[in-house]
Amino acid sequence: MTEPTQDSFPVTPTNKIRVAKRANYDRDTLFAILDEGLIAQVGFVLDDKPIVLPMAYGRIDDQIYIHGAKAARMLKKLKEGLPVCLNVTLVDGLVLGRAAFHHTMNFRSANIHGTARLVEDEKEKYDALVAITDHLAPGRWDETRETTKKEINATTVIAVTIEQAASKIRGGMPIDDEEDYDLDFWAGVVPISTSFGPAIDDARLKAGIPVADSIRKLTSRR
Amino acid sequence: MTEPTQDSFPVTPTNKIRVAKRANYDRDTLFAILDEGLIAQVGFVLDDKPIVLPMAYGRIDDQIYIHGAKAARMLKKLKEGLPVCLNVTLVDGLVLGRAAFHHTMNFRSANIHGTARLVEDEKEKYDALVAITDHLAPGRWDETRETTKKEINATTVIAVTIEQAASKIRGGMPIDDEEDYDLDFWAGVVPISTSFGPAIDDARLKAGIPVADSIRKLTSRR
Repeated sequence: MTEPTQDSFPVTPTNKIRVAKRANYDRDTLFAILDEGLIAQVGFVLDDKPIVLPMAYGRIDDQIYIHGAKAARMLKKLKEGLPVCLNVTLVDGLVLGRAAFHHTMNFRSANIHGTARLVEDEKEKYDALVAITDHLAPGRWDETRETTKKEINATTVIAVTIEQAASKIRGGMPIDDEEDYDLDFWAGVVPISTSFGPAIDDARLKAGIPVADSIRKLTSRR
Repeated sequence: MTEPTQDSFPVTPTNKIRVAKRANYDRDTLFAILDEGLIAQVGFVLDDKPIVLPMAYGRIDDQIYIHGAKAARMLKKLKEGLPVCLNVTLVDGLVLGRAAFHHTMNFRSANIHGTARLVEDEKEKYDALVAITDHLAPGRWDETRETTKKEINATTVIAVTIEQAASKIRGGMPIDDEEDYDLDFWAGVVPISTSFGPAIDDARLKAGIPVADSIRKLTSRR
């Protein structure tokens, strides 16, 4: 394995990406993908079988936080010490070659291996809940009514410390066989974009309340 | 477990969704989510640890097909008989309550448990490759140059038979505590939409070739 640096994750047999030109082990690249994504697919092993579930999440440094109702079956299984693999993938486009063989997608994918840890410290749990809420729209937590102790107690928060990680990224045009470029088939890219809004007021919203600042920023930005 | 019907999957301890109003076990609902999604997060167990990887896929009836280069480490592990869990999630909106506790997302998620099977039959492998290509844009396979035996041989195709499956769906507005509806906090939904195109010609496209039909349909439709 390569030695990690302050700015990058070590390359190990577990996280090494076969196609070197698609691989990126920088912390900042990984964190940017995690911060842009909305859903993480969280995988763990239960009775020797794989479970993959989509979850909202938040990030503070190299800790990923997921949460759920205390009653949720899955969170009960994600107990202390369980190995977890977590994937966040942003799809940027369809890549259409002259040959079916050279069709692919443009994407940015963050893949993480870590260990689940039940968050019991009160301050860490509170900060994690803020991070998960603000992940939807930065600043949103402060625009809502104060969270109660009862709500916090009813919520289980699990931290996954990033132990091994890699980003895999593809961009640009198809790469066809050299002799195919002269063929009469169309080839190119279809960009895929994700857009937010416009915001829809809750049907029971009190009269005269404007759309919250965090939401206005989100829907005007992307 | 409930008995399966022709139109639905059985409900078992593995696929049962805790919140009943979000659960759907219909085949058509699951297939619609799979057909709209682009990336499946595929989970399996390797050396007692979970691996989750994003993969393109195609579907024929209750078979999900994934593929990759013969050299790909992951596909070598997805050998005959390995249990697989596969998730496809479409995010439809942010749901913003008056309380942080009632924030969530609108989404449609398909979750599948099955067993990996190496596709060796020539016709099934060919049909699977067509399905994976046409999953990007229906009809695309027929717009490309003929696939060679060498290309087919260089590709590994894995089938996952859907054995257990469930869809989980959330739509609509936040559900706040009754006493919170009178508070002066904004609440509502931010719809999220994914759009395709316009198509970008490959920089080396021969002059005079129009955008392919499948792609025109895709970019005008959504």
